[in-house]
Amino acid sequence: MSERFFLEAPPRDGRAVLTGDEARHLARVLRAAVGDEVIVFAGTGIHWPARVVRIGREEVELDTGAGRADPPAAGPPLTLAVALPKGERQKWLVEKITELGVARLVPLRTERGVAEATPSAVERLRRGVIEACKQCGRDTLMEIGAPVTVTEVLAALTGGCRGLVADPSGSPLDAAVLRAGADAVLALVGPEGGFTDAELAAADRAGAGRATLGPHILRVETAAVAVAARLM
Amino acid sequence: MSERFFLEAPPRDGRAVLTGDEARHLARVLRAAVGDEVIVFAGTGIHWPARVVRIGREEVELDTGAGRADPPAAGPPLTLAVALPKGERQKWLVEKITELGVARLVPLRTERGVAEATPSAVERLRRGVIEACKQCGRDTLMEIGAPVTVTEVLAALTGGCRGLVADPSGSPLDAAVLRAGADAVLALVGPEGGFTDAELAAADRAGAGRATLGPHILRVETAAVAVAARLM
Repeated sequence: MSERFFLEAPPRDGRAVLTGDEARHLARVLRAAVGDEVIVFAGTGIHWPARVVRIGREEVELDTGAGRADPPAAGPPLTLAVALPKGERQKWLVEKITELGVARLVPLRTERGVAEATPSAVERLRRGVIEACKQCGRDTLMEIGAPVTVTEVLAALTGGCRGLVADPSGSPLDAAVLRAGADAVLALVGPEGGFTDAELAAADRAGAGRATLGPHILRVETAAVAVAARLM
Repeated sequence: MSERFFLEAPPRDGRAVLTGDEARHLARVLRAAVGDEVIVFAGTGIHWPARVVRIGREEVELDTGAGRADPPAAGPPLTLAVALPKGERQKWLVEKITELGVARLVPLRTERGVAEATPSAVERLRRGVIEACKQCGRDTLMEIGAPVTVTEVLAALTGGCRGLVADPSGSPLDAAVLRAGADAVLALVGPEGGFTDAELAAADRAGAGRATLGPHILRVETAAVAVAARLM
Protein backbone atom coordinates (compact mmCIF):
# COMPACT_ATOMS: atom_id res chain seq x y z
CA MET A 1 0.00 0.00 0.00
CA SER A 2 1.26 3.51 -0.83
CA GLU A 3 1.47 5.98 2.01
CA ARG A 4 -1.87 7.60 2.85
CA PHE A 5 -2.50 11.31 3.42
CA PHE A 6 -5.49 13.05 4.89
CA LEU A 7 -7.27 15.82 2.97
CA GLU A 8 -9.24 18.47 4.84
CA ALA A 9 -11.58 18.57 1.81
CA PRO A 10 -12.32 15.92 -0.85
CA PRO A 11 -10.84 16.36 -4.33
CA ARG A 12 -12.70 18.59 -6.82
CA ASP A 13 -12.41 18.10 -10.56
CA GLY A 14 -9.56 15.62 -10.12
CA ARG A 15 -7.46 17.99 -8.02
CA ALA A 16 -6.72 17.92 -4.28
CA VAL A 17 -4.64 20.02 -1.90
CA LEU A 18 -2.78 18.77 1.18
CA THR A 19 -2.28 21.40 3.88
CA GLY A 20 -0.76 21.73 7.33
CA ASP A 21 1.07 18.77 8.86
CA GLU A 22 0.07 16.48 6.01
CA ALA A 23 1.70 18.76 3.43
CA ARG A 24 4.80 19.25 5.58
CA HIS A 25 5.14 15.52 6.17
CA LEU A 26 4.98 14.74 2.46
CA ALA A 27 7.13 17.62 1.29
CA ARG A 28 9.76 17.91 4.01
CA VAL A 29 9.94 14.63 5.89
CA LEU A 30 9.44 12.35 2.90
CA ARG A 31 10.99 14.89 0.48
CA ALA A 32 8.39 14.14 -2.16
CA ALA A 33 8.99 15.21 -5.76
CA VAL A 34 6.58 16.17 -8.51
CA GLY A 35 5.27 12.93 -10.02
CA ASP A 36 5.38 10.89 -6.77
CA GLU A 37 2.31 8.75 -6.11
CA VAL A 38 0.38 8.52 -2.87
CA ILE A 39 -3.13 7.71 -1.62
CA VAL A 40 -5.39 10.46 -0.29
CA PHE A 41 -8.63 10.32 1.67
CA ALA A 42 -10.86 12.88 3.31
CA GLY A 43 -12.55 10.67 5.88
CA THR A 44 -15.67 10.35 3.72
CA GLY A 45 -15.43 6.64 2.96
CA ILE A 46 -13.45 6.98 -0.27
CA HIS A 47 -9.75 7.00 -1.14
CA TRP A 48 -8.08 8.21 -4.28
CA PRO A 49 -4.77 7.49 -5.96
CA ALA A 50 -2.97 10.79 -6.38
CA ARG A 51 0.14 12.22 -8.02
CA VAL A 52 2.07 15.27 -6.80
CA VAL A 53 1.88 18.13 -9.29
CA ARG A 54 3.14 21.09 -7.24
CA ILE A 55 4.97 21.45 -3.93
CA GLY A 56 4.43 24.80 -2.24
CA ARG A 57 5.73 26.15 1.06
CA GLU A 58 2.65 25.12 3.04
CA GLU A 59 0.67 22.99 0.64
CA VAL A 60 1.01 20.18 -1.87
CA GLU A 61 -1.22 19.96 -4.92
CA LEU A 62 -2.15 16.60 -6.36
CA ASP A 63 -3.94 15.15 -9.37
CA THR A 64 -6.34 12.45 -8.25
CA GLY A 65 -7.61 9.34 -10.04
CA ALA A 66 -10.87 7.46 -9.65
CA GLY A 67 -12.03 7.10 -6.05
CA ARG A 68 -12.57 3.75 -4.38
CA ALA A 69 -15.12 3.26 -1.61
CA ASP A 70 -14.46 1.59 1.77
CA PRO A 71 -16.00 -1.89 1.90
CA PRO A 72 -19.43 -1.77 3.58
CA ALA A 73 -19.43 -2.60 7.30
CA ALA A 74 -20.33 -6.20 8.14
CA GLY A 75 -22.74 -5.36 10.93
CA PRO A 76 -24.76 -2.50 12.42
CA PRO A 77 -22.66 0.59 13.23
CA LEU A 78 -21.28 0.61 16.76
CA THR A 79 -21.19 3.67 18.98
CA LEU A 80 -18.97 3.39 22.05
CA ALA A 81 -19.76 5.78 24.89
CA VAL A 82 -16.71 5.65 27.12
CA ALA A 83 -15.64 7.33 30.36
CA LEU A 84 -12.28 8.16 28.83
CA PRO A 85 -9.04 7.27 30.59
CA LYS A 86 -6.19 9.79 30.55
CA GLY A 87 -3.04 10.27 28.54
CA GLU A 88 -1.50 7.36 26.70
CA ARG A 89 -4.40 5.08 27.56
CA GLN A 90 -6.85 7.44 25.88
CA LYS A 91 -4.64 7.70 22.82
CA TRP A 92 -4.31 3.95 22.60
CA LEU A 93 -8.04 3.43 22.97
CA VAL A 94 -8.78 5.75 20.06
CA GLU A 95 -6.21 4.10 17.82
CA LYS A 96 -7.48 0.59 18.54
CA ILE A 97 -11.21 1.20 18.19
CA THR A 98 -10.58 3.15 14.98
CA GLU A 99 -8.69 0.16 13.55
CA LEU A 100 -11.49 -2.16 14.63
CA GLY A 101 -14.10 -0.11 12.79
CA VAL A 102 -16.11 1.56 15.55
CA ALA A 103 -18.37 4.16 13.92
CA ARG A 104 -18.51 6.72 16.71
CA LEU A 105 -16.85 7.44 20.05
CA VAL A 106 -18.76 9.52 22.57
CA PRO A 107 -16.91 10.79 25.66
CA LEU A 108 -19.09 9.76 28.58
CA ARG A 109 -19.47 11.99 31.64
CA THR A 110 -19.95 9.70 34.62
CA GLU A 111 -20.13 10.26 38.34
CA ARG A 112 -16.79 8.50 38.92
CA GLY A 113 -15.05 9.53 35.69
CA VAL A 114 -11.76 11.40 35.73
CA ALA A 115 -10.90 12.79 32.28
CA GLU A 116 -12.79 15.84 31.14
CA ALA A 117 -13.30 16.04 27.37
CA THR A 118 -12.22 19.64 26.80
CA PRO A 119 -12.23 21.08 23.27
CA SER A 120 -8.46 20.57 23.04
CA ALA A 121 -8.86 16.97 24.22
CA VAL A 122 -11.52 16.36 21.58
CA GLU A 123 -9.22 17.85 18.93
CA ARG A 124 -6.47 15.47 20.11
CA LEU A 125 -8.91 12.55 19.80
CA ARG A 126 -9.79 13.63 16.27
CA ARG A 127 -6.10 13.80 15.35
CA GLY A 128 -5.67 10.28 16.72
CA VAL A 129 -8.53 9.05 14.56
CA ILE A 130 -6.93 10.51 11.43
CA GLU A 131 -3.55 8.98 12.23
CA ALA A 132 -5.13 5.56 12.82
CA CYS A 133 -7.16 5.83 9.59
CA LYS A 134 -4.00 6.66 7.65
CA GLN A 135 -2.25 3.65 9.09
CA CYS A 136 -5.01 1.01 8.93
CA GLY A 137 -6.49 1.89 5.55
CA ARG A 138 -9.84 3.09 6.88
CA ASP A 139 -11.44 5.76 4.68
CA THR A 140 -14.33 6.81 6.93
CA LEU A 141 -13.29 8.76 10.01
CA MET A 142 -14.55 7.51 13.34
CA GLU A 143 -16.84 10.26 14.53
CA ILE A 144 -16.12 11.89 17.90
CA GLY A 145 -19.35 12.93 19.58
CA ALA A 146 -19.90 15.72 22.06
CA PRO A 147 -19.45 14.67 25.71
CA VAL A 148 -22.70 13.46 27.25
CA THR A 149 -23.97 12.00 30.50
CA VAL A 150 -25.23 8.44 30.86
CA THR A 151 -28.84 9.62 30.83
CA GLU A 152 -28.26 11.72 27.72
CA VAL A 153 -26.60 8.97 25.71
CA LEU A 154 -29.28 6.45 26.67
CA ALA A 155 -31.84 8.63 24.91
CA ALA A 156 -30.44 7.19 21.65
CA LEU A 157 -31.94 3.79 22.51
CA THR A 158 -35.05 4.06 20.43
CA GLY A 159 -36.32 2.04 17.48
CA GLY A 160 -33.69 -0.34 16.12
CA CYS A 161 -30.78 0.84 18.28
CA ARG A 162 -29.79 -1.81 20.83
CA GLY A 163 -27.72 -1.02 23.88
CA LEU A 164 -25.45 -2.64 26.42
CA VAL A 165 -23.58 -1.54 29.49
CA ALA A 166 -20.27 -3.22 30.31
CA ASP A 167 -20.56 -4.17 33.97
CA PRO A 168 -19.37 -7.10 36.11
CA SER A 169 -22.95 -7.64 37.33
CA GLY A 170 -24.11 -8.59 33.83
CA SER A 171 -24.40 -11.80 31.83
CA PRO A 172 -21.64 -12.79 29.40
CA LEU A 173 -21.83 -10.56 26.33
CA ASP A 174 -23.64 -12.35 23.51
CA ALA A 175 -22.73 -10.38 20.41
CA ALA A 176 -24.89 -12.39 18.00
CA VAL A 177 -28.05 -11.86 20.07
CA LEU A 178 -27.35 -8.17 20.51
CA ARG A 179 -26.63 -7.53 16.84
CA ALA A 180 -29.50 -9.62 15.45
CA GLY A 181 -32.01 -7.28 13.90
CA ALA A 182 -30.31 -4.16 15.27
CA ASP A 183 -29.95 -1.09 13.06
CA ALA A 184 -27.26 0.24 15.36
CA VAL A 185 -25.58 -0.71 18.63
CA LEU A 186 -24.63 1.53 21.54
CA ALA A 187 -22.23 0.24 24.20
CA LEU A 188 -21.42 2.09 27.42
CA VAL A 189 -18.08 1.61 29.14
CA GLY A 190 -17.64 3.19 32.55
CA PRO A 191 -14.69 4.62 34.48
CA GLU A 192 -12.18 2.66 36.60
CA GLY A 193 -14.49 2.79 39.60
CA GLY A 194 -17.42 1.51 37.57
CA PHE A 195 -20.88 2.94 37.05
CA THR A 196 -22.85 4.02 40.09
CA ASP A 197 -26.04 2.20 41.04
CA ALA A 198 -28.03 5.19 39.78
CA GLU A 199 -26.29 5.05 36.40
CA LEU A 200 -26.88 1.31 36.12
CA ALA A 201 -30.52 1.77 37.05
CA ALA A 202 -30.89 4.39 34.31
CA ALA A 203 -29.40 1.94 31.82
CA ASP A 204 -31.75 -0.81 32.99
CA ARG A 205 -34.75 1.48 32.52
CA ALA A 206 -33.57 2.42 29.02
CA GLY A 207 -33.33 -1.25 28.04
CA ALA A 208 -29.54 -1.47 27.83
CA GLY A 209 -28.57 -4.94 29.03
CA ARG A 210 -25.67 -5.36 31.41
CA ALA A 211 -22.87 -7.46 29.93
CA THR A 212 -19.75 -8.77 31.63
CA LEU A 213 -16.49 -9.20 29.78
CA GLY A 214 -15.01 -11.89 31.99
CA PRO A 215 -13.88 -12.46 35.55
CA HIS A 216 -11.11 -9.86 35.77
CA ILE A 217 -11.22 -6.14 36.41
CA LEU A 218 -10.58 -4.65 32.98
CA ARG A 219 -9.08 -1.22 32.52
CA VAL A 220 -11.36 1.20 30.71
CA GLU A 221 -9.48 0.97 27.43
CA THR A 222 -9.32 -2.82 27.60
CA ALA A 223 -13.07 -3.04 28.10
CA ALA A 224 -13.72 -0.62 25.23
CA VAL A 225 -11.43 -2.48 22.82
CA ALA A 226 -12.87 -5.84 23.89
CA VAL A 227 -16.43 -4.61 23.29
CA ALA A 228 -15.39 -3.26 19.89
CA ALA A 229 -13.72 -6.54 18.91
CA ARG A 230 -16.76 -8.55 20.02
CA LEU A 231 -19.36 -6.35 18.28
CA MET A 232 -17.64 -5.71 14.95
CA MET B 1 -10.24 -4.54 46.70
CA SER B 2 -7.11 -4.31 48.87
CA GLU B 3 -3.82 -3.85 47.08
CA ARG B 4 -2.39 -7.06 45.66
CA PHE B 5 1.21 -8.27 45.99
CA PHE B 6 3.01 -11.02 44.16
CA LEU B 7 4.78 -13.80 46.06
CA GLU B 8 7.69 -15.65 44.46
CA ALA B 9 6.52 -18.72 46.43
CA PRO B 10 3.06 -19.62 47.81
CA PRO B 11 2.48 -19.34 51.58
CA ARG B 12 3.54 -22.24 53.80
CA ASP B 13 1.88 -22.93 57.13
CA GLY B 14 -0.01 -19.63 56.97
CA ARG B 15 3.14 -17.56 56.48
CA ALA B 16 4.41 -15.80 53.34
CA VAL B 17 7.39 -13.61 52.48
CA LEU B 18 7.44 -10.73 50.00
CA THR B 19 10.85 -10.03 48.49
CA GLY B 20 12.49 -7.69 45.98
CA ASP B 21 10.40 -4.94 44.39
CA GLU B 22 7.20 -6.20 45.96
CA ALA B 23 8.65 -5.89 49.47
CA ARG B 24 10.18 -2.49 48.73
CA HIS B 25 6.90 -1.22 47.27
CA LEU B 26 4.92 -2.26 50.32
CA ALA B 27 7.47 -1.18 52.93
CA ARG B 28 8.96 1.99 51.44
CA VAL B 29 6.50 3.38 48.90
CA LEU B 30 3.32 2.54 50.75
CA ARG B 31 5.07 2.76 54.17
CA ALA B 32 3.20 -0.25 55.47
CA ALA B 33 3.08 -0.94 59.20
CA VAL B 34 2.79 -4.18 61.12
CA GLY B 35 -0.87 -5.17 61.15
CA ASP B 36 -1.69 -3.71 57.69
CA GLU B 37 -3.81 -5.95 55.46
CA VAL B 38 -3.16 -6.79 51.81
CA ILE B 39 -3.90 -9.53 49.30
CA VAL B 40 -1.13 -11.86 48.12
CA PHE B 41 -0.96 -14.30 45.23
CA ALA B 42 1.76 -16.45 43.72
CA GLY B 43 0.36 -16.85 40.23
CA THR B 44 -0.98 -20.30 41.03
CA GLY B 45 -4.67 -19.53 40.75
CA ILE B 46 -5.23 -18.66 44.42
CA HIS B 47 -5.11 -15.46 46.43
CA TRP B 48 -4.86 -15.03 50.18
CA PRO B 49 -5.74 -12.25 52.58
CA ALA B 50 -2.57 -11.38 54.49
CA ARG B 51 -1.43 -9.24 57.41
CA VAL B 52 2.02 -7.74 57.83
CA VAL B 53 3.86 -9.24 60.81
CA ARG B 54 7.46 -8.09 60.22
CA ILE B 55 9.09 -5.51 57.95
CA GLY B 56 12.74 -6.24 57.20
CA ARG B 57 15.26 -4.38 55.06
CA GLU B 58 14.59 -6.45 51.94
CA GLU B 59 11.57 -8.54 52.82
CA VAL B 60 8.16 -8.34 54.40
CA GLU B 61 6.69 -11.27 56.35
CA LEU B 62 2.96 -11.84 56.38
CA ASP B 63 0.42 -14.06 58.08
CA THR B 64 -2.00 -15.42 55.50
CA GLY B 65 -5.64 -16.47 55.82
CA ALA B 66 -7.66 -19.02 53.86
CA GLY B 67 -6.89 -19.02 50.12
CA ARG B 68 -9.54 -18.33 47.49
CA ALA B 69 -9.35 -19.84 44.01
CA ASP B 70 -9.72 -17.90 40.72
CA PRO B 71 -13.10 -18.62 39.10
CA PRO B 72 -12.77 -21.37 36.47
CA ALA B 73 -12.31 -20.14 32.89
CA ALA B 74 -15.49 -20.00 30.81
CA GLY B 75 -14.04 -21.65 27.72
CA PRO B 76 -11.06 -23.69 26.51
CA PRO B 77 -7.67 -22.15 27.38
CA LEU B 78 -6.33 -19.85 24.67
CA THR B 79 -2.71 -19.77 23.58
CA LEU B 80 -1.72 -16.75 21.49
CA ALA B 81 1.39 -17.18 19.34
CA VAL B 82 2.34 -13.66 18.33
CA ALA B 83 5.10 -12.09 16.25
CA LEU B 84 5.71 -9.54 18.99
CA PRO B 85 5.82 -5.83 18.24
CA LYS B 86 8.46 -3.71 19.93
CA GLY B 87 8.59 -1.42 22.95
CA GLU B 88 5.40 0.09 24.29
CA ARG B 89 3.23 -1.90 21.91
CA GLN B 90 4.63 -5.16 23.26
CA LYS B 91 4.09 -4.02 26.84
CA TRP B 92 0.54 -2.98 26.08
CA LEU B 93 -0.23 -6.26 24.34
CA VAL B 94 0.90 -8.26 27.37
CA GLU B 95 -1.13 -6.13 29.76
CA LYS B 96 -4.31 -6.41 27.70
CA ILE B 97 -4.25 -10.13 26.95
CA THR B 98 -3.43 -10.85 30.59
CA GLU B 99 -6.50 -8.87 31.65
CA LEU B 100 -8.61 -10.71 29.08
CA GLY B 101 -7.58 -14.09 30.44
CA VAL B 102 -5.29 -15.54 27.76
CA ALA B 103 -3.65 -18.66 29.21
CA ARG B 104 -0.34 -18.53 27.38
CA LEU B 105 1.63 -16.17 25.13
CA VAL B 106 4.22 -17.68 22.83
CA PRO B 107 6.64 -15.34 21.03
CA LEU B 108 6.44 -16.34 17.39
CA ARG B 109 9.51 -16.29 15.13
CA THR B 110 8.29 -15.40 11.65
CA GLU B 111 10.05 -14.63 8.40
CA ARG B 112 8.94 -10.97 8.52
CA GLY B 113 9.01 -10.49 12.30
CA VAL B 114 11.13 -7.78 13.89
CA ALA B 115 11.35 -8.26 17.66
CA GLU B 116 13.65 -11.00 18.93
CA ALA B 117 12.50 -12.57 22.18
CA THR B 118 15.80 -12.46 24.08
CA PRO B 119 15.96 -13.78 27.66
CA SER B 120 15.82 -10.20 28.98
CA ALA B 121 12.79 -9.48 26.76
CA VAL B 122 11.05 -12.61 28.08
CA GLU B 123 11.81 -11.52 31.66
CA ARG B 124 10.27 -8.11 30.83
CA LEU B 125 7.17 -9.87 29.48
CA ARG B 126 6.91 -11.91 32.66
CA ARG B 127 7.15 -8.76 34.78
CA GLY B 128 4.36 -7.23 32.68
CA VAL B 129 2.17 -10.27 33.31
CA ILE B 130 2.67 -9.97 37.08
CA GLU B 131 1.85 -6.25 37.06
CA ALA B 132 -1.31 -6.85 35.05
CA CYS B 133 -2.35 -9.74 37.32
CA LYS B 134 -1.89 -7.50 40.36
CA GLN B 135 -4.06 -4.86 38.81
CA CYS B 136 -6.86 -6.91 37.28
CA GLY B 137 -7.34 -9.45 40.07
CA ARG B 138 -6.11 -12.44 38.09
CA ASP B 139 -4.52 -15.11 40.30
CA THR B 140 -3.07 -17.40 37.60
CA LEU B 141 -0.12 -15.96 35.73
CA MET B 142 -0.32 -15.94 31.96
CA GLU B 143 2.44 -18.31 30.90
CA ILE B 144 5.16 -17.02 28.58
CA GLY B 145 6.34 -19.79 26.29
CA ALA B 146 9.75 -20.16 24.67
CA PRO B 147 10.02 -18.49 21.24
CA VAL B 148 9.07 -20.85 18.41
CA THR B 149 8.65 -20.81 14.65
CA VAL B 150 5.29 -21.15 12.91
CA THR B 151 6.01 -24.78 12.06
CA GLU B 152 7.01 -25.55 15.63
CA VAL B 153 3.92 -24.00 17.22
CA LEU B 154 1.60 -25.72 14.75
CA ALA B 155 2.79 -29.09 16.08
CA ALA B 156 0.50 -28.39 19.07
CA LEU B 157 -2.55 -28.83 16.84
CA THR B 158 -3.32 -32.41 17.73
CA GLY B 159 -6.35 -34.01 19.38
CA GLY B 160 -8.74 -31.45 20.82
CA CYS B 161 -6.62 -28.36 20.21
CA ARG B 162 -8.14 -26.16 17.48
CA GLY B 163 -6.17 -23.52 15.65
CA LEU B 164 -6.59 -20.33 13.68
CA VAL B 165 -4.34 -17.94 11.85
CA ALA B 166 -5.28 -14.26 11.74
CA ASP B 167 -4.98 -13.30 8.09
CA PRO B 168 -6.89 -10.97 5.73
CA SER B 169 -7.37 -13.87 3.29
CA GLY B 170 -9.53 -15.75 5.78
CA SER B 171 -13.24 -15.93 6.58
CA PRO B 172 -14.69 -13.83 9.41
CA LEU B 173 -13.65 -15.34 12.73
CA ASP B 174 -16.47 -17.47 14.15
CA ALA B 175 -15.56 -17.89 17.80
CA ALA B 176 -18.46 -20.18 18.68
CA VAL B 177 -17.62 -22.66 15.92
CA LEU B 178 -13.94 -22.66 16.80
CA ARG B 179 -14.49 -23.16 20.51
CA ALA B 180 -17.22 -25.80 20.20
CA GLY B 181 -15.80 -29.08 21.41
CA ALA B 182 -12.25 -27.74 21.63
CA ASP B 183 -10.07 -28.66 24.61
CA ALA B 184 -7.78 -25.76 23.82
CA VAL B 185 -7.41 -23.07 21.18
CA LEU B 186 -4.23 -21.81 19.52
CA ALA B 187 -4.29 -18.54 17.56
CA LEU B 188 -1.39 -17.26 15.48
CA VAL B 189 -0.93 -13.52 14.92
CA GLY B 190 1.75 -12.48 12.44
CA PRO B 191 4.04 -9.46 12.09
CA GLU B 192 3.18 -6.10 10.48
CA GLY B 193 4.07 -7.45 7.04
CA GLY B 194 1.87 -10.50 7.52
CA PHE B 195 2.68 -14.18 7.24
CA THR B 196 4.50 -15.40 4.14
CA ASP B 197 2.77 -17.73 1.72
CA ALA B 198 4.94 -20.57 3.03
CA GLU B 199 3.88 -19.87 6.61
CA LEU B 200 0.20 -19.73 5.61
CA ALA B 201 0.56 -22.98 3.68
CA ALA B 202 2.06 -24.65 6.75
CA ALA B 203 -0.91 -23.45 8.81
CA ASP B 204 -3.33 -24.75 6.18
CA ARG B 205 -1.66 -28.17 6.25
CA ALA B 206 -1.81 -28.24 10.05
CA GLY B 207 -5.56 -27.53 9.96
CA ALA B 208 -5.45 -24.01 11.37
CA GLY B 209 -8.21 -22.05 9.64
CA ARG B 210 -7.49 -18.55 8.34
CA ALA B 211 -9.66 -15.94 10.02
CA THR B 212 -9.99 -12.27 9.17
CA LEU B 213 -10.68 -9.64 11.82
CA GLY B 214 -12.29 -7.08 9.55
CA PRO B 215 -11.52 -4.90 6.56
CA HIS B 216 -8.72 -2.78 8.05
CA ILE B 217 -5.04 -3.46 8.50
CA LEU B 218 -4.71 -4.14 12.20
CA ARG B 219 -1.51 -3.56 14.08
CA VAL B 220 -0.09 -6.72 15.64
CA GLU B 221 -1.19 -5.83 19.16
CA THR B 222 -4.68 -4.85 17.98
CA ALA B 223 -5.11 -8.18 16.21
CA ALA B 224 -3.87 -10.09 19.25
CA VAL B 225 -6.16 -8.25 21.66
CA ALA B 226 -9.12 -8.61 19.27
CA VAL B 227 -8.55 -12.37 18.97
CA ALA B 228 -8.30 -12.63 22.75
CA ALA B 229 -11.53 -10.67 23.25
CA ARG B 230 -13.35 -12.80 20.69
CA LEU B 231 -12.15 -16.15 21.99
CA MET B 232 -12.45 -15.63 25.74
